[in-house]
Amino acid sequence: MTPADFFPRVRELVDAKLHAYFEQQVAEATTISPESVELVEGIRDLTLRGGKRFRPVVLAAATTCVAPERPLSDTVSAGAALELLQSYLLIHDDWMDQDDERRGGPAVHAAFRARHEGHLADSLAILAGDIGSAYAFELFVDAPFPAARHAEAVQAFLRIQKEVILGQHLDLTANPDVSRMHDLKTGSYTVRGPLLLGAILGDASEEAMAAFLAYGNPLGEAFQLADDLLGTFGDQGATGKPGNDLRNGKRTCLVAEAERLLPPGQRDALDRVIGGADRSEPALEAASALLVASGAKANVEARLKALLAEAHGALEGAPFSAAGVTLLKAVADRLAVRSS
Amino acid sequence: MTPADFFPRVRELVDAKLHAYFEQQVAEATTISPESVELVEGIRDLTLRGGKRFRPVVLAAATTCVAPERPLSDTVSAGAALELLQSYLLIHDDWMDQDDERRGGPAVHAAFRARHEGHLADSLAILAGDIGSAYAFELFVDAPFPAARHAEAVQAFLRIQKEVILGQHLDLTANPDVSRMHDLKTGSYTVRGPLLLGAILGDASEEAMAAFLAYGNPLGEAFQLADDLLGTFGDQGATGKPGNDLRNGKRTCLVAEAERLLPPGQRDALDRVIGGADRSEPALEAASALLVASGAKANVEARLKALLAEAHGALEGAPFSAAGVTLLKAVADRLAVRSS
Repeated sequence: MTPADFFPRVRELVDAKLHAYFEQQVAEATTISPESVELVEGIRDLTLRGGKRFRPVVLAAATTCVAPERPLSDTVSAGAALELLQSYLLIHDDWMDQDDERRGGPAVHAAFRARHEGHLADSLAILAGDIGSAYAFELFVDAPFPAARHAEAVQAFLRIQKEVILGQHLDLTANPDVSRMHDLKTGSYTVRGPLLLGAILGDASEEAMAAFLAYGNPLGEAFQLADDLLGTFGDQGATGKPGNDLRNGKRTCLVAEAERLLPPGQRDALDRVIGGADRSEPALEAASALLVASGAKANVEARLKALLAEAHGALEGAPFSAAGVTLLKAVADRLAVRSS
Repeated sequence: MTPADFFPRVRELVDAKLHAYFEQQVAEATTISPESVELVEGIRDLTLRGGKRFRPVVLAAATTCVAPERPLSDTVSAGAALELLQSYLLIHDDWMDQDDERRGGPAVHAAFRARHEGHLADSLAILAGDIGSAYAFELFVDAPFPAARHAEAVQAFLRIQKEVILGQHLDLTANPDVSRMHDLKTGSYTVRGPLLLGAILGDASEEAMAAFLAYGNPLGEAFQLADDLLGTFGDQGATGKPGNDLRNGKRTCLVAEAERLLPPGQRDALDRVIGGADRSEPALEAASALLVASGAKANVEARLKALLAEAHGALEGAPFSAAGVTLLKAVADRLAVRSS
């Protein structure tokens, strides 16, 4: 199957699984406590409203690398579990960050605020996330991991959760180690974790496990750099305007790199935007210009290119099926060379 | 082993397990993100600061009923998992209820407020609960359930979580069905869930599983009634003062029963306290007197007695070891005939 067929096929299977699962959970919750079904609906609506299902695609591609004979349907429960894990953590993150929008609709706490007062709405959102944590495990334990590697699969799944939560701690406390924060919040969760789970599902050898990490670690970082470039400079061809990351004063890799390159006296325009003292359009444009003039943009772009090459290079000589390598190349390009 | 030996022995084993587990988790988190260890310490301090370890005792007693030859140490991981599950949910509940004290110290969000501003402290408490959810699973999957019944054990563990979360929804939204709320929040989590997990661990027969439910369902309700009596009337021998439940305007079973018994015109004193219009000492004493004069207290005490007899009765003829029956009788008395 070519990437052009594979990606939408995984999405279709995962969406079907999620629809069926939520139908069951609404029915189950209705028998337990009908008035409380709004919790299930809260996480269901967010989960089914979109999302690129990228983690299930990465997971299924990894399985294809080491067990190309396994049907895609074998990867669906574990992929759906990753989507539920994401919903659970996004609901909590959005409340923590006070982000009221998600996937083209209201964040879950914002949706509950339409029906309940503030603290109650927030509490119900936290609960909707909590029930999602149980759902993620229920889907996960349903996945057909090789019996001898069940404990290893559970450890990999728990490791993702621990890393994301510790990474979110760094984010909330504005820790200056932005690259560790991204590795924990994004690298683990979007790339390394799904790869390892797909690998275990396909009963990958030790050598193959190492090859997945050699591919996944640089790719996770490349993904974050691509995200920061896109969030900061936007689709310059289309709008030419500074993106939302600067508007929100986010300490991206670009900001960290500019701070490293510029002597203290020359970074005022940037400090004012990041510190929140002035986020007017002229201030944003001055800060954006400084990210370019300092050489930060060029450095980040060069690093992104090198990381992407490293990820591609790790696929040479890896003990993977040809079909799997083609998929992982497409995954890398999709993650690290994006326009949206 | 008599109950007088068994209860403290389980507590000791579970405490030792929890200490060792948290030592590992602090070490692991330190290698991942040293600044973020405060999350682990937050849930560790709450977990190790006390708690009666009652759920692990119930679980171990159930295992003894059906597999008296199994060493107590076999029940410890599952018991410790229940304690972590409780810590996770208590952290979230305390924030939702804005309860700043727990187990003789600050609730986790209150402890974080000593170091971080309000919303950040609250967010870190939610995260400390979230990491506890992963810890609970890690301990749970380590428990030696019979291989053929692993899926059943996971379902029982997830069922507890789903029921508690749906019950908390009823509590937060002040649903009038107080007894369903209690069954979900307390019956499932304190009695039914631990019994079923201990039973599965001991590879209980279908007949034994049914006997555990016949014992556990009335006991769960009895436990809640005892809790309401204690929370409302306190240890009358010691203080004679109305307890905290009235002070907090809690809609206990006693309040629900008094409302059922009293014609609308005669429940003003109670309505003022529950509705929050007047919670002065004289108002509290008038409401407390109304709970007695209406017959609500006597009815609740009679129902508690009947439920306790039903739980004891279910042990007659159950396919349990003699040692197990002695333990479950002691468990029932401990839960339903309490002074603290």
